[in-house]
Amino acid sequence: MTIQEPATARPAGRPRSEKAEKAIIDATLDLIGEGTGLVELSIEAIASRAGVGKTTIYRRWSNKEDLVADALATLQAPLPRLAGVSVRDDLIVLLDSMRSEAGQVRTRCVMNIAFSESDRYPRLMERFVDIAVEPRRQAMREVIRRGIASGELRPDIEVEMSMAILSGAMIWHHKWGPADGLPADLAERIVDHLLPGLAA
Amino acid sequence: MTIQEPATARPAGRPRSEKAEKAIIDATLDLIGEGTGLVELSIEAIASRAGVGKTTIYRRWSNKEDLVADALATLQAPLPRLAGVSVRDDLIVLLDSMRSEAGQVRTRCVMNIAFSESDRYPRLMERFVDIAVEPRRQAMREVIRRGIASGELRPDIEVEMSMAILSGAMIWHHKWGPADGLPADLAERIVDHLLPGLAA
Repeated sequence: MTIQEPATARPAGRPRSEKAEKAIIDATLDLIGEGTGLVELSIEAIASRAGVGKTTIYRRWSNKEDLVADALATLQAPLPRLAGVSVRDDLIVLLDSMRSEAGQVRTRCVMNIAFSESDRYPRLMERFVDIAVEPRRQAMREVIRRGIASGELRPDIEVEMSMAILSGAMIWHHKWGPADGLPADLAERIVDHLLPGLAA
Repeated sequence: MTIQEPATARPAGRPRSEKAEKAIIDATLDLIGEGTGLVELSIEAIASRAGVGKTTIYRRWSNKEDLVADALATLQAPLPRLAGVSVRDDLIVLLDSMRSEAGQVRTRCVMNIAFSESDRYPRLMERFVDIAVEPRRQAMREVIRRGIASGELRPDIEVEMSMAILSGAMIWHHKWGPADGLPADLAERIVDHLLPGLAA
């Protein structure tokens, strides 16, 4: 697992310990991955699992929400590369990256937390949206706008609603689909089911 | 709030106490509504809040999952009555009932639990699907099948995928829509955005 550079400013003059940071992030994700909810998750438990003192954590993160947001950010795969030729193909690639991320236990935890505790942790949610959600939305938005500009899609479709419908169909399958994994052609089926209604 | 008759068999010969049962259900929902996750939720805490002894709870529910499933079931509004004339109108009524349920704090908790803790509580989830999810799916399934039979919808659409897409769009808005409530015409906009792709 690679550690992304978190977006918060590091306190000036602090010595950087990549190894401790990675251990703290891993401990956080391990605990969440084992089913520890955000309420139960404590800096004590993370420190103990990571084999560091609480001070080492507090030196880097002033609170649990910021630590969890940074930990979640490390789980995100890079955005898939889009060919930029066919709107259909690019939408399938984007939806398929949602499908494969959800196949991983740790990433399922991201989803679960994002969906379950957003009311209680607005700041975590806000950071998570900035880091993880918005770049994906922006990629899909650009594909749909390109499709409208090229004439592949109807000029009168609502871009944001189309995004909600495409993503919502995948979210629905994450939660209600077969427990042993989503079918490999799911993204293609969703897009092909929707495209006749969106095409010019 | 009306208490539905829970689906589990009551132990034979036990005296029924409607009042205690309602207090226990209310206490369970209150605690969840205040943000207590299923892991933290204890029979002790429920008993204390309800003003009953733990024995009174265990006399009726052998475990936390069954109690929570019955409590969640009481939150569900009755299925909306469908006019059965236009597929568009019936789909809007069904989606709009999803929208208005999500506007209530207690029902949001149902959603959060259903979406967050399903991996850890398979039995709860299974009962919740039986009691709350499947009847709603069946209603939508029947509307779509009726539309295909009447020629309003294309004969080649996938019924289950169409349901996933319609419901998924609403689920997406629950999670990512404006915090101060979803627009009153959201169900109509979703249906009208999708219908051109599904219509015969």
